[in-house]
Amino acid sequence: MGGARLIQLAEKLGGIDSLVAASQPHLKRAGLDQQTINALRNPEDARLEQDLKWLSEPDHHLLTWDSENYPTLLRDIPSPPAALFVEGDPNVLWQPQIAVIGSRNPTTGGRDNAFDFAAELARQGLTITSGMASGIDSCAHHAALDAGGRTVAVTGTGLDRVYPASSHTLATRIRQQGALVSEFVLGTAVKRSHFPSRNRIISGLSLGVLVIEAGLNSGTLITARMAGNQGRDVFALPGSIHNPMSKGCHRLIRDGARLVENVAQILEELAPLAGQLAAELKKQLAQVSDQGQLELSGQEPQLEQDPEYSQLWSCLSFDPVPMDRLIEQSGLTARAVSAMLLMLELRGKAEAHPGGAWSRKK
Amino acid sequence: MGGARLIQLAEKLGGIDSLVAASQPHLKRAGLDQQTINALRNPEDARLEQDLKWLSEPDHHLLTWDSENYPTLLRDIPSPPAALFVEGDPNVLWQPQIAVIGSRNPTTGGRDNAFDFAAELARQGLTITSGMASGIDSCAHHAALDAGGRTVAVTGTGLDRVYPASSHTLATRIRQQGALVSEFVLGTAVKRSHFPSRNRIISGLSLGVLVIEAGLNSGTLITARMAGNQGRDVFALPGSIHNPMSKGCHRLIRDGARLVENVAQILEELAPLAGQLAAELKKQLAQVSDQGQLELSGQEPQLEQDPEYSQLWSCLSFDPVPMDRLIEQSGLTARAVSAMLLMLELRGKAEAHPGGAWSRKK
Repeated sequence: MGGARLIQLAEKLGGIDSLVAASQPHLKRAGLDQQTINALRNPEDARLEQDLKWLSEPDHHLLTWDSENYPTLLRDIPSPPAALFVEGDPNVLWQPQIAVIGSRNPTTGGRDNAFDFAAELARQGLTITSGMASGIDSCAHHAALDAGGRTVAVTGTGLDRVYPASSHTLATRIRQQGALVSEFVLGTAVKRSHFPSRNRIISGLSLGVLVIEAGLNSGTLITARMAGNQGRDVFALPGSIHNPMSKGCHRLIRDGARLVENVAQILEELAPLAGQLAAELKKQLAQVSDQGQLELSGQEPQLEQDPEYSQLWSCLSFDPVPMDRLIEQSGLTARAVSAMLLMLELRGKAEAHPGGAWSRKK
Repeated sequence: MGGARLIQLAEKLGGIDSLVAASQPHLKRAGLDQQTINALRNPEDARLEQDLKWLSEPDHHLLTWDSENYPTLLRDIPSPPAALFVEGDPNVLWQPQIAVIGSRNPTTGGRDNAFDFAAELARQGLTITSGMASGIDSCAHHAALDAGGRTVAVTGTGLDRVYPASSHTLATRIRQQGALVSEFVLGTAVKRSHFPSRNRIISGLSLGVLVIEAGLNSGTLITARMAGNQGRDVFALPGSIHNPMSKGCHRLIRDGARLVENVAQILEELAPLAGQLAAELKKQLAQVSDQGQLELSGQEPQLEQDPEYSQLWSCLSFDPVPMDRLIEQSGLTARAVSAMLLMLELRGKAEAHPGGAWSRKK
């Protein structure tokens, strides 16, 4: 049973817990066949035990689609994954992200560009999301980490089967300074057909997608088109007409992707969607807020009159304060702090610093 | 008195000849001041003599705006030149043209691209139009000539003062295998302020403009924007983000110019405007035709029932026939033959060959 069908059903029954707890006649009336019902009611014990053992380890998390920790941008794509396995800090999935993707066999110039763009985007406070493949993906992750930024890697295997093997050191760094994410259950081996599924999560988590180098007929182009269908901005670097690894980027630009030469051009385009994200986060926070006191006036809440903003503002200073400390001192959730910092940044009141620290700007 | 004003007046009076012949009170009523009337009625004898002497030489021509030989695409731009001085074959101005332009200081790669694109476009039957400046312009002219094609150079000086001096050999070749064109009277020396005027003619004569390399804030970008305002397709080659000579092209692409990597992509885009041009030429031919017999049904005339098409068709064979021979054998004007060949090419019935020869295709 696919993720979309599962989600539809869970939504009907009031959540994934209700789905698992539902009686057999109930599930039958909902239209499930006997095989699926058996699988739901009698999960393989060995696999379940393996999953539970994995979950019990530190920094291992499972975000189900109906939980409030599930990333909001991803929830809105046409077929969101039913659940995400996460190793590392799940709060990083609520940070504004940009996907940096491209060929597994880039030119030297392509590698350099991937590194430079990812590093600068990370320094500007964006989290770099990619697929941990060799080539452009790995360059982008490394650059974000080296710049003291955050990075998210989405894998096409179970999280206990990191692929490619050469990425083990990289995976370790990402766990410590970001998050590894997969929708595939533990033990899932590498499979070509999993990559498109993986790619929809990369773009689904992100505000936009930057393609550094790509051949024609490459998986990167499929991801970029999927991103466009998800309503994400697609950016592509131009290159020499004689470089085969630029042909994919040129195809995308001819089809409507934005030609970009520097990070400033990307940030300019992302601002509107980032603003929408901030407003959306704010709205969702209001819905789940215990106090239910947040005043929302469309996309322009009165920050000054908002008690949570006052709380956060009092924790910010003109010297950079690490995000963790802001969460601790304000007593707010990581999600709330992320959303509010983004809003403050868009209004020019707060500034991001390398390593995820923040300061007042005025 | 500017060209636009002169044309307006000539139009009102029924042609440039009537304007020159008009009585003083008549011109005064038309709103001219005494100084302009004096200049019109008493041209400097020395200059006039110089002009007449120039015109009497072989292959020297003057096309006034109200003459039927004036190129139709150029007539439709916002401020067409009142007259064009032409050295070489004026019929080439009725051929479908593409402007190939760019920096005076291109990179080696830029020069190579200019050469390759201009040569291939010329082989595909398009006339290459440019400004004879050093750099990209000169490469484009040379490539067209070497490929056995035709080329038009528009100068910003009088035709007796070819600029730059290093272009003398090139100018000689262009006179023999195309045309040199200027709106500036003989003796006009090089002047910075003349280049924008010159550039509007380059794009005005052409179906589209291809920018090979250009810096930011270059004259090339001004020409490209002017071309856009004239309703022409603008094409630009992408390049490395680290090449300063690609920055102008990238700016154009970001602003809506079409990114192109090869000649096929250009031809595909030009087809609709070329079709309009063919229909327009056909219409104008019908208007000036002595017989007045041409059947016109919108953009799709019935070629088979058209006596002029039958005449031309009988002169075409499956072996390439030079354009000059087609004109001679059919007894039609160069303009009529150009327009009809373009129409036949667009319908896949005729094919252009190097050197301006044509054959049947089916």
